[in-house]
Amino acid sequence: MKQSIGAKTLATPTPVWLVGTYDEAGAANVMTAAWGGICCSQPPCLAVSLRKATYSHAAIVARKAFTVSIPSQAQVAQADYVGTVSGRDGDKFAACGWTAVKSDLVDAPYVDEVPLVVECRLLHIHELGLHTQFVGEIVDVKADEALIGAKGYPDITKVRPMIWDTAHMGYYGLGEFLGKAWEIGKAITTEGMK
Amino acid sequence: MKQSIGAKTLATPTPVWLVGTYDEAGAANVMTAAWGGICCSQPPCLAVSLRKATYSHAAIVARKAFTVSIPSQAQVAQADYVGTVSGRDGDKFAACGWTAVKSDLVDAPYVDEVPLVVECRLLHIHELGLHTQFVGEIVDVKADEALIGAKGYPDITKVRPMIWDTAHMGYYGLGEFLGKAWEIGKAITTEGMK
Repeated sequence: MKQSIGAKTLATPTPVWLVGTYDEAGAANVMTAAWGGICCSQPPCLAVSLRKATYSHAAIVARKAFTVSIPSQAQVAQADYVGTVSGRDGDKFAACGWTAVKSDLVDAPYVDEVPLVVECRLLHIHELGLHTQFVGEIVDVKADEALIGAKGYPDITKVRPMIWDTAHMGYYGLGEFLGKAWEIGKAITTEGMK
Repeated sequence: MKQSIGAKTLATPTPVWLVGTYDEAGAANVMTAAWGGICCSQPPCLAVSLRKATYSHAAIVARKAFTVSIPSQAQVAQADYVGTVSGRDGDKFAACGWTAVKSDLVDAPYVDEVPLVVECRLLHIHELGLHTQFVGEIVDVKADEALIGAKGYPDITKVRPMIWDTAHMGYYGLGEFLGKAWEIGKAITTEGMK
């Protein structure tokens, strides 16, 4: 018997992503977002949702672009900091000792020090309520060369992305490898478990 | 210097969610989805993206509802299985030895055996390309009583949700606790690291 918890945003896991933007004056800003995910394979798209009150919201609308810088677990303090301070009040890149690199493809900066970066061109704006969902077409993914694994793709065990725990407001690391897709499921058949 | 990997859906982490639906004849179905996330706090909403070719896609359009059942890492074989077989070809609940429970709030079933369940009423359909994004208003969250922690919310270390690795198509568990929000970031100030 399951217990009812109410209408709350407790689906898990959620990511720890840093949304990079330029404001109208050209200042680079970055903020932490956990409301997001991949949303389409073709064209490749991701979605991030921001409150209208955030400084980054107006920047995305103005510049029609944003980046997602994906920090590793070693950067948890910085990831938390940029989620708790507004870009209106100071230069978060400088506070973190981070470098804002202008994307060569979209009108937005990314964090040079994080392992993995996704550059997005704004495709859709969906007004959902307190949050606006920005759907960005992924125009490139960039990774530190040392983190590239098989197929030329980033090795998640080297990227070490974080997981946000909404329920108790904490950060978690990536855990153990559990199995490969299309293999571990072969234990199940239409006759039930083998 | 970062290396360009191309326009690929490699933002990470992504969830392992099981989307539950009834088809037009009333048969319960469930499929694995990694393209999703929370997308609004008020009203509380999540988004999942499915290809039009999936059996679940038509079911959501017809019933205007779906659930997200969140499996624990002990259920990785079942989670993989229900992502590799179509509901057109058989009863995936039966194959997994799972029980389809009709939601008391929306016209969709959930998996009784998973630790955490989110019930959604369809709010928006966004056609993005290969995938359709379904935005569902969260009308309730249900959890096994033994997994409830502080504040009456689920304890993520007991739920043990999985992380999907798109790059190399594997499943990972939840890792170590890294820090609390609004605390660990205090190491950073506008003068730089303390």
